[in-house]
Amino acid sequence: MDYRGIFPPVATPFTASGDVDFNAHRANVARWMATRLRGLVVLGSNGEAAYLAEDEAERLIAVTREGVPRDRLLVAGTGRDATRATGDACRRAAAAGADAVLVRPPMAFKNQMTPDALLRHYTAVADASPVPVLLYNFASAFGVNLATETIVQLAGHPNIIGLKESGGDIAQIGDQVARTPADFVVVVGSAPSLYASLCVGATGAIVAAANLIPEPLIDLFDAVASGDHPRALALQRALTPLARAVTTGWGVPALKAAMTLAGYQGGFPRAPLPPASDSVVQELRRLLTDLPASTGASHVAAAR
Amino acid sequence: MDYRGIFPPVATPFTASGDVDFNAHRANVARWMATRLRGLVVLGSNGEAAYLAEDEAERLIAVTREGVPRDRLLVAGTGRDATRATGDACRRAAAAGADAVLVRPPMAFKNQMTPDALLRHYTAVADASPVPVLLYNFASAFGVNLATETIVQLAGHPNIIGLKESGGDIAQIGDQVARTPADFVVVVGSAPSLYASLCVGATGAIVAAANLIPEPLIDLFDAVASGDHPRALALQRALTPLARAVTTGWGVPALKAAMTLAGYQGGFPRAPLPPASDSVVQELRRLLTDLPASTGASHVAAAR
Amino acid sequence: MDYRGIFPPVATPFTASGDVDFNAHRANVARWMATRLRGLVVLGSNGEAAYLAEDEAERLIAVTREGVPRDRLLVAGTGRDATRATGDACRRAAAAGADAVLVRPPMAFKNQMTPDALLRHYTAVADASPVPVLLYNFASAFGVNLATETIVQLAGHPNIIGLKESGGDIAQIGDQVARTPADFVVVVGSAPSLYASLCVGATGAIVAAANLIPEPLIDLFDAVASGDHPRALALQRALTPLARAVTTGWGVPALKAAMTLAGYQGGFPRAPLPPASDSVVQELRRLLTDLPASTGASHVAAAR
Amino acid sequence: MDYRGIFPPVATPFTASGDVDFNAHRANVARWMATRLRGLVVLGSNGEAAYLAEDEAERLIAVTREGVPRDRLLVAGTGRDATRATGDACRRAAAAGADAVLVRPPMAFKNQMTPDALLRHYTAVADASPVPVLLYNFASAFGVNLATETIVQLAGHPNIIGLKESGGDIAQIGDQVARTPADFVVVVGSAPSLYASLCVGATGAIVAAANLIPEPLIDLFDAVASGDHPRALALQRALTPLARAVTTGWGVPALKAAMTLAGYQGGFPRAPLPPASDSVVQELRRLLTDLPASTGASHVAAAR
Repeated sequence: MDYRGIFPPVATPFTASGDVDFNAHRANVARWMATRLRGLVVLGSNGEAAYLAEDEAERLIAVTREGVPRDRLLVAGTGRDATRATGDACRRAAAAGADAVLVRPPMAFKNQMTPDALLRHYTAVADASPVPVLLYNFASAFGVNLATETIVQLAGHPNIIGLKESGGDIAQIGDQVARTPADFVVVVGSAPSLYASLCVGATGAIVAAANLIPEPLIDLFDAVASGDHPRALALQRALTPLARAVTTGWGVPALKAAMTLAGYQGGFPRAPLPPASDSVVQELRRLLTDLPASTGASHVAAAR
Repeated sequence: MDYRGIFPPVATPFTASGDVDFNAHRANVARWMATRLRGLVVLGSNGEAAYLAEDEAERLIAVTREGVPRDRLLVAGTGRDATRATGDACRRAAAAGADAVLVRPPMAFKNQMTPDALLRHYTAVADASPVPVLLYNFASAFGVNLATETIVQLAGHPNIIGLKESGGDIAQIGDQVARTPADFVVVVGSAPSLYASLCVGATGAIVAAANLIPEPLIDLFDAVASGDHPRALALQRALTPLARAVTTGWGVPALKAAMTLAGYQGGFPRAPLPPASDSVVQELRRLLTDLPASTGASHVAAAR
Repeated sequence: MDYRGIFPPVATPFTASGDVDFNAHRANVARWMATRLRGLVVLGSNGEAAYLAEDEAERLIAVTREGVPRDRLLVAGTGRDATRATGDACRRAAAAGADAVLVRPPMAFKNQMTPDALLRHYTAVADASPVPVLLYNFASAFGVNLATETIVQLAGHPNIIGLKESGGDIAQIGDQVARTPADFVVVVGSAPSLYASLCVGATGAIVAAANLIPEPLIDLFDAVASGDHPRALALQRALTPLARAVTTGWGVPALKAAMTLAGYQGGFPRAPLPPASDSVVQELRRLLTDLPASTGASHVAAAR
Repeated sequence: MDYRGIFPPVATPFTASGDVDFNAHRANVARWMATRLRGLVVLGSNGEAAYLAEDEAERLIAVTREGVPRDRLLVAGTGRDATRATGDACRRAAAAGADAVLVRPPMAFKNQMTPDALLRHYTAVADASPVPVLLYNFASAFGVNLATETIVQLAGHPNIIGLKESGGDIAQIGDQVARTPADFVVVVGSAPSLYASLCVGATGAIVAAANLIPEPLIDLFDAVASGDHPRALALQRALTPLARAVTTGWGVPALKAAMTLAGYQGGFPRAPLPPASDSVVQELRRLLTDLPASTGASHVAAAR
């Protein structure tokens, strides 16, 4: 499996009454598949996975698979707090069509989640999963950190093929690449540090902004791959404000509103998340419009 | 409903293979009901609620109710990340026999859990719940803080009857009591600050140590109620080391091991939580044995 | 030396041009000495010690001593980052008339301030100081924590007589009292937790609000000493809002403004601290006026 | 003034009895000046500035200037907690020969150090300083953050020429470069993120490792300048373990020990900092020996 490229951690659209809007999702999948995105990640944080019931999660994977051809990758988030529940979720995801699973660490009993406990947990999950496992580290969001040493140990498991790192500590990302085997996947989760992450050897990226502006992110990836650093840096600077707005700025409500502005069907967030406010929507429209023509002209049509 | 008194947030015993051990639980409930505990709280953090499936949770409430007479209180933890899922859990808990529900805040998207979002969430949950709601604040564990101002606002809802506060900031507890109506329940969740909490007006306590040494905690409560401050302080000092060992010290694994040492059936934790190590068990035995005869003699028999 | 009672960590008044206003300070000292305050603490955090040059600090101690009779205690803050500089400051403070010194931990190189490093530092400082040493713990402000175990070890040094603890964790305060000798002084630094701190055995208090409303704080102390808990709790509740406003609320600028409203000479803060804004001053006036007549009537005259 | 290049934040050697060892320092300066280092920074965190008296600081600048020719830059740390004291320190530093000053933010009263307070402080300091000012941001060490917005505003002051950023958040560094004028200096303070920082546009670096292995750091800088990214990344990976060991790993004691191993005169730290332990010294020797011949052969001679 080739993880070189850009993946959106796809947002899950809800109807105004709070149900999963599978039709809206199908339309989004079709549109993403018309781009050069390497694949899709469902049921990540940006997919409001914490808000979905088990049956909703399972159906979402199956519906997505219908729209994702086999030469693109479909990754499903399957992390749960208990080890057994996580293994079960991996099995269901594989049965529903996922090519791989992305497993966040257990978040309950943070103080007890020592390196040893995490090692045992991920080893048991990887043993149980029918499809390859990507570790997931995002210490500031999860409250649990996967130390580089632990990642290095887990990289030796035959069914653990890589890591998503969503923190922006570039030295840590550099270490993760340098200290794991050459074929260990390191995909990053923070678009504002994408260019720098690729410089230090990251394989690819799973970034929220790819839900709405995939092409300039792919262009950035290609620029680094071809050694065109000035173009990559220019794209990074152009993308950063919008990428930040839909994540650390105003979060999933803004991501969904921006998707809608860009022609996707963002839908509503599920409560307790509120919809984006009018002032946020206006600012998102401005950011979309400001993206220079060279970096994403075709994607801002709907915003004008 | 009278919340004056002591409640254990009961541990959920698992078998060595990781199943809920309902028989062990029944035996524990019977033993707790032989004490003067005011009631039981199931499916709290100490109950490893994060590790239980919905059907296990529901059955645990029903099984517990069988052993808890109607003149004692049965409270069930029903917090989920999504508002709708939380309301559903409240309905199931009520149907299974809970007298009230204890609702932790949503933990996903912490940055978005503003006072307004929490206000809307808890209002919707209280509207949906057939039984009274206790708020639950434990900022350091949940990563989300219920500001006193928010608590004061929520105290106006007819179906929100109180709060469990598990942080040890005594001034904050004092505020919560002083700024809410006289009949608003403030139960505290930290045994090492129990005496001080009662001094500043707390109604009662839901503390892990009550799983294994209920009597000295009840004695402490009674001492404050009768104005015997020297005895209350002496009990507090005697209890603190053990109370801390089974919480901030070594957590749920130690709580379960100490229960077993004290004659309860602690059972195993569920993975990724490991069982307590031998050295921890030895230290727990020492702490149980050290509890002065005056404070809990009958409860340490098994530990000798 | 008897530390039972209330001490203000006195504010240092500056002129509009930023010089120490020794005359204003002399007037404040005279007024404090007309109350039943047990003594004064100069050059603490609230005294803006970090902003004073060595010669200013030395003169402030000497000027204060002139106004503090020998049957009251004068304590001077002498903590510096380097061990040698701290010892030197203790010697100068003693020579200028301090009865004891209050020594904050070194704040540079926080990660290196291990229990061992702190043990060596305080031992060397206590060896060097001609007058007794009070440790000072305020982890959230200093970024360095004195573990209870370290305090217990340092309590064995013949020249270390006590501790000021400014955090509000009441269980920690209880431990500090319970685990040190009976004559080891534990004075607390947070007025909103004063009543609870006295309940668990604190010796006295060094609290900012004592700069402006010493009498109700002394009354609270006396109420606990005489076993009148209901009166102590009532005083605590009456005092808390103002006590918080001049500390965690709006800090030293508010403390100085409130002192002026209460008839003291608060003077200006030194830059970069700004003076309190007009809206803060109005809120302080309201809080002073709201203090019930029973708790501090004579002290709010100036605020009306 | 041209800040393109590498600067060591020079360690201050002390004798075993705790005095500044000016002769050792002179020898170090001479050796640094024999390399292509762009200049020296004295009295930074790594220089234990917090432990030096004002007269020691002044003399250190003067002594350093004697050894630093006018075509190299001499920068002196002059941050103090009070605005006036900081301005005074800038004047003394300029008089003693500094080309520019590096000003850390005030660390007292962190909660009061709002963007407005920092804006006023730095503006007053820049007005007072006879030589240009570099801002200094290191939120995790100082407990105060200079928001990018504040930096952008301060960049408009004619005597504020740049910023040292020591955090490793690469997106923040990218922003600082992108949002300030082209001639605004952004020097970074974290060697493990040096390559990535240069990719996103940093001007140069002030990094502890330059005290002992200046040449490979200069080579890395040159590699990026000439567009040789593969060589830059290889150098980064080779340097990172040692660079981390002498900073986040074991701090200033390790930095001094490693300097001595590399042929410089590291001297002793000042108490309360302890000297590096034997096991740390052994590990440092290993790290120095492991540096591949291609990246710093001549600098590890002393370590063998």
